[in-house]
Amino acid sequence: MPSEFDLIQHYFSRFSGEYTNGNIRLGVADDCAIFTSGHHRHIATSKDLLIEGVHFFSDVSPMALGHKALAVNLSDLAAMGASPIACLLGIALPRVDDLWLAEFTKGFYRLAEQFNCPLIGGDTTRHPQGVVISVTVFGEVTPPYMMRSQAQPGDTIWVSGELGAAHIALQFMLKEKGNKGLSASEQHVLAQIRKALEYPTPRVALGQALQGVANAAIDISDGLLQDLGHILSQSKVSAVVQESKLPISPLLKELPVEDIAEAVYRGGDVYELCFTAPPSKTEAICRLSKNLRIPLTAIGTILPCGEKASLNVIDTHGKRVDITLQGFDHFSND
Amino acid sequence: MPSEFDLIQHYFSRFSGEYTNGNIRLGVADDCAIFTSGHHRHIATSKDLLIEGVHFFSDVSPMALGHKALAVNLSDLAAMGASPIACLLGIALPRVDDLWLAEFTKGFYRLAEQFNCPLIGGDTTRHPQGVVISVTVFGEVTPPYMMRSQAQPGDTIWVSGELGAAHIALQFMLKEKGNKGLSASEQHVLAQIRKALEYPTPRVALGQALQGVANAAIDISDGLLQDLGHILSQSKVSAVVQESKLPISPLLKELPVEDIAEAVYRGGDVYELCFTAPPSKTEAICRLSKNLRIPLTAIGTILPCGEKASLNVIDTHGKRVDITLQGFDHFSND
Repeated sequence: MPSEFDLIQHYFSRFSGEYTNGNIRLGVADDCAIFTSGHHRHIATSKDLLIEGVHFFSDVSPMALGHKALAVNLSDLAAMGASPIACLLGIALPRVDDLWLAEFTKGFYRLAEQFNCPLIGGDTTRHPQGVVISVTVFGEVTPPYMMRSQAQPGDTIWVSGELGAAHIALQFMLKEKGNKGLSASEQHVLAQIRKALEYPTPRVALGQALQGVANAAIDISDGLLQDLGHILSQSKVSAVVQESKLPISPLLKELPVEDIAEAVYRGGDVYELCFTAPPSKTEAICRLSKNLRIPLTAIGTILPCGEKASLNVIDTHGKRVDITLQGFDHFSND
Repeated sequence: MPSEFDLIQHYFSRFSGEYTNGNIRLGVADDCAIFTSGHHRHIATSKDLLIEGVHFFSDVSPMALGHKALAVNLSDLAAMGASPIACLLGIALPRVDDLWLAEFTKGFYRLAEQFNCPLIGGDTTRHPQGVVISVTVFGEVTPPYMMRSQAQPGDTIWVSGELGAAHIALQFMLKEKGNKGLSASEQHVLAQIRKALEYPTPRVALGQALQGVANAAIDISDGLLQDLGHILSQSKVSAVVQESKLPISPLLKELPVEDIAEAVYRGGDVYELCFTAPPSKTEAICRLSKNLRIPLTAIGTILPCGEKASLNVIDTHGKRVDITLQGFDHFSND
């Protein structure tokens, strides 16, 4: 069996010499990796754990997993408007499977190259019970930051991209693995939407462009209602969202209305940004949308708090839609 | 069951407001944490995965685990001479056990406070198969760094502290869990040495003080021979080590000679530093040892490489001791 050091050398040292951005001083090869930040720039950092059987299926495409492990972390940088500097990868594996590792690193490195975010260190170890992945990313950002606590009454609430596809893809894949299987039309839909679940695109350029434009931002990894809820509670504000404005993925149009609602309101694993900005920035945001070719949709308004931060969704008749402030939560979903 | 956010709020937000060092700009509460580094200082970072059943026993003291999860990462900063800035904690738990979490965070925070290394972010999730911990640390360091590749022929090889106790403690604990149990005298020894395994002290102050003194440094987490071997191969040098100089823990003196040798040469999980420095620095190093109250022992000499980097250990008669360049390796030890 190859040693831990052979593994690191073979699969995880690609960026050490041949590919770095100007911030990297020392890559995979020592007790620490070392990097720098620009003058007056601050370091933003985030980490996520991905665990087999909890966050991904055991038979997931390793290339998709490599992509997603980095994408979900880059999405956190995007939500702070930070430019990627580098990343660390901790990975625990039940065994050394060369084909699996080759595909995994292909997915990981492709995204890392695309976002100029070299892998500069980490840890590899054995874990008989399944694959565990822990990625840490670093980016640089100039204050003031887009914080969850900075939404202001009067701000317009925006979301990027489209909603719902990742959640429906997950439901279909669960059904596919169950006894019943999928109908032909469901298979057809799944083929079109599984990319939203498996290969999400972190909105890094959008996040950077929103600095100085948006007041608050968050990625929708835990679902629109829950993540917008974090902005409301931390900013001590309320909000009204117009259901008819929600940018629902057109690929879902044949599905039952209640399934779509569940997916759009509560569906997690969406690496789009939800952000708030003063109405005076609307024109700038529309220009941004055009330049970056990313749909940006105004879905509602931030209101003064009242007694308690509340989130109301209203339909086309101005009637309140029954929703609760609950998205995906790893512990309460047991 | 409490939600992920309740958990973060209750157990992992202690440093957010009340306790930070001057580098912290944003703690647990947003998509990223944000920190800064001093002028002309670079960021050193490292991460380690700790997995139940692989790196620690399921019935480990949670306080010891909290301590060690951070200690092993601070030890990597120490080996680069970096001063701690902050850390991230990713933790996956099979269930929410309040007593366990209170003890774990007690061990973690106590060390974090001692080394002024606030917890500024991370990830909590569920994992039915057992506890997984992933800590990332950040420190700042001024170049030139102590790199594994910088050992020079003629350098003296030093180690801090004492060797062997952690490995013997692990062997005794494995035996204790087996059918045979421990003899009374073994229990007595274990009571004295288990602290070396469970509560290692990262040599952070030593690492910082060695900047500008040592050429190369590494922590002995994978065993003296293997880790010194990394310095040799990366520096393209050879070495001779005198067996009689090795600082063996006096608590082991009653044990069989071959067990001690195994523990000293190959025993991992030792968070002491092995470093090399020119003979001209010997006096400075002895002063350092006295000021920091840390035993520092010269154990050998770096030699020119010859045909291939080699490590020879010699006994008091100048005879070569039979050892191999192999320490603990997570994949090759199957």
